[in-house]
Amino acid sequence: MANALRLGIAGLGTVGGGVLDVLQKNGATLALRAGIPVEVTAVSARNPSKKRTQDISKLAWFDDPVALAMSDGIDVLVELMGGEGDPARSAVEAALKSGKPVVTANKALLAHHGVALAKLAESKGVALAFEAAVAGGIPIVKTMREALAGNRTGKVFGILNGTCNYILTKMGDEQRSFSSVLAEAQELGYAEADPTFDVGGFDTAHKLALLTSLAFGTEVSLDDIDIEGIESITLEDIGNASDMGYMIKLLGVAVAHEEGIEQRVNPTLVPKGSPVADTSGVFNAVVVKGDFVGDLFLEGRGAGAHPTASAVVSDIVDVARGNLRPVFGIPAKDLRAYRRAPAKAHVGGYYIALELHDRPGEVAAIARILADEKISIASIVQRAPRSEQPRTTAPFILITHDTLELSMRAALQRIERDGHAASKPRMIRIERL
Amino acid sequence: MANALRLGIAGLGTVGGGVLDVLQKNGATLALRAGIPVEVTAVSARNPSKKRTQDISKLAWFDDPVALAMSDGIDVLVELMGGEGDPARSAVEAALKSGKPVVTANKALLAHHGVALAKLAESKGVALAFEAAVAGGIPIVKTMREALAGNRTGKVFGILNGTCNYILTKMGDEQRSFSSVLAEAQELGYAEADPTFDVGGFDTAHKLALLTSLAFGTEVSLDDIDIEGIESITLEDIGNASDMGYMIKLLGVAVAHEEGIEQRVNPTLVPKGSPVADTSGVFNAVVVKGDFVGDLFLEGRGAGAHPTASAVVSDIVDVARGNLRPVFGIPAKDLRAYRRAPAKAHVGGYYIALELHDRPGEVAAIARILADEKISIASIVQRAPRSEQPRTTAPFILITHDTLELSMRAALQRIERDGHAASKPRMIRIERL
Repeated sequence: MANALRLGIAGLGTVGGGVLDVLQKNGATLALRAGIPVEVTAVSARNPSKKRTQDISKLAWFDDPVALAMSDGIDVLVELMGGEGDPARSAVEAALKSGKPVVTANKALLAHHGVALAKLAESKGVALAFEAAVAGGIPIVKTMREALAGNRTGKVFGILNGTCNYILTKMGDEQRSFSSVLAEAQELGYAEADPTFDVGGFDTAHKLALLTSLAFGTEVSLDDIDIEGIESITLEDIGNASDMGYMIKLLGVAVAHEEGIEQRVNPTLVPKGSPVADTSGVFNAVVVKGDFVGDLFLEGRGAGAHPTASAVVSDIVDVARGNLRPVFGIPAKDLRAYRRAPAKAHVGGYYIALELHDRPGEVAAIARILADEKISIASIVQRAPRSEQPRTTAPFILITHDTLELSMRAALQRIERDGHAASKPRMIRIERL
Repeated sequence: MANALRLGIAGLGTVGGGVLDVLQKNGATLALRAGIPVEVTAVSARNPSKKRTQDISKLAWFDDPVALAMSDGIDVLVELMGGEGDPARSAVEAALKSGKPVVTANKALLAHHGVALAKLAESKGVALAFEAAVAGGIPIVKTMREALAGNRTGKVFGILNGTCNYILTKMGDEQRSFSSVLAEAQELGYAEADPTFDVGGFDTAHKLALLTSLAFGTEVSLDDIDIEGIESITLEDIGNASDMGYMIKLLGVAVAHEEGIEQRVNPTLVPKGSPVADTSGVFNAVVVKGDFVGDLFLEGRGAGAHPTASAVVSDIVDVARGNLRPVFGIPAKDLRAYRRAPAKAHVGGYYIALELHDRPGEVAAIARILADEKISIASIVQRAPRSEQPRTTAPFILITHDTLELSMRAALQRIERDGHAASKPRMIRIERL
């Protein structure tokens, strides 16, 4: 290695700029921590003439990130382009094949091709580091891969998307609808023009797939995640949940069961006062349950140029210090095949929102159906309708004790089939943590 | 290195037993994560014939931990005896001098001799790892030393002693006095027979001194910490704080000022709903403020055999993987000399509890004195005395806006000197986080 660690950065967007900021501001201390000066020598981006806050005129410019990856002028490829396909994928493969360590923030690439890329990196004996790909500035990858090395993890879950958490927080704090807050988030740049990837839960799923592999030593399996977004969450849901002592958060949850692994992304009721419930705004949070450490909770900024750059630089220092670990904690060849737990494996409490016909016997009928399915009720809220208009239906909200998901679904099917509900019943999981 | 990483454990108490438990239960996965099997080959403890849950009959026994440290039969010394002096110190020195990495949970040793030991370890090119010395299972050392490598830290603070947090939590939840809860904690084994080291804030100070060095790249300086324990916290304080929206926690706080570094351990009012306020019972929590990552919060079990063993094993795997870092993040020779910030540097809010003579003009006099010192009042609570007896004095509680510590102290001196207070005024800092 030269007398400096030479970085080639592919992608000079928000995060790329953040990394340049870190090196510029804290470069001296960084050299002491890394044991060698760290400098960017080459870059690749879409537009050479784009106005940038940093001066990149002295850096070698590559139009083709793959050429950058193979260049002898760099020791490490820092891939910040994003996207599961090319050019990110081919650039990362090219760097690894040429024996260069890769630091990336690309969750999509790893969620889709993580195991193959890990095998390639490990066969070459170089690092493929992705701290920045999950929960931004929160060092959850290093924590699970290194700090919890002595533990068997039983469960990992968290708030992994700041946009969704911002929207849900604002809805509750300001009593505003999903669409109104989303529009504001888009103006503020917290949400994309097409918000589906965030609010639909897909971004959370990508990150969860990587945490699941780190947690259980299994192959990454994005396709085995049940995904549900926050689009259907109403102010009424948030209000009802609050009355019963809960907040609604979009959680990514992975649990190891006897029968296999359960991975899901869905809006979830979490008890007020719990760390996850208190994680508000754009912040992210992760809870890991290890057999020796117990419950470990991390909270921090899950996105943004500087928090994400902090994670990227952490990986760069690991490379400089020769801290070489298997990409997913254990060698990729030893990762167990992913086995999906049957839906029945899930046991938990549920929030059920029904719109019942306002006529005698309906509540009794609901109670009977739940009893038939051996579902016991923890609490019931029947709210006065908000409108002044006379109504033929009434909202009926209940929270159940722990029950099998299958029983819950069966009960809701009967409630619909027997015509008790004026609109489709809504069900939200409860995570008692 | 042999075909296994051979550990010599000095000290087979709670944590030592926990480490044996981890290796026994998760040894197979650990070998994959470490890249080599990890096994204990030799031990040293006070009493060879003591009854233990683990079978140590096949391990080499050393009466003298120094002899264990120098033994050719081990690759790593795991020092779990504790204590700043011998035999811990001499055993650690012996291991480092013979070129052996050391993993220790010994906060006292590092708080007193950390820099000298770090220089020795770095001169030999071996690790001196101490994750378990601070906040038990919370990977705060790895986080500050590695994950935040790109950051300049401005402030680090947290709940670092589970015994104090357990006592304060119980006092508030069950409306019981300090002494009553302490007695219970001693029965349950959460507090020592002589609780001074914990409740007096000294344990927290030892841990804070290490975090301060990691945070600011300065030499460890235990002597520069202002230490105040929780013995004087009353149920009234907790009640008053709660009325005003705060919880009382024992915090260790380190801040980098222009004029130098501020380190203090004291009971502190923290806003309800903040992560630190929600950290209850025996749990520990740390907040780090980095210039790029922003606020990072970690919460977990700060003590106990298994959480602490989890941290010890994390260090062992670092050794196995050759993840060699400067002990305090940057080389010990580059650590800056510690410069203590003058008391006036501290600016913050204060909780003031006064017992005023029940006569006209007293409140006015207090208000005047505070005004003279340019201290503005955020809120006032004058509680009805709890006893039925007629009283000649009345409790007077106030919370100030941010003010200089010197002004606050001057005001309290005047209040005492002018005879307004029937008993010594009490002042508790507020950390708005």
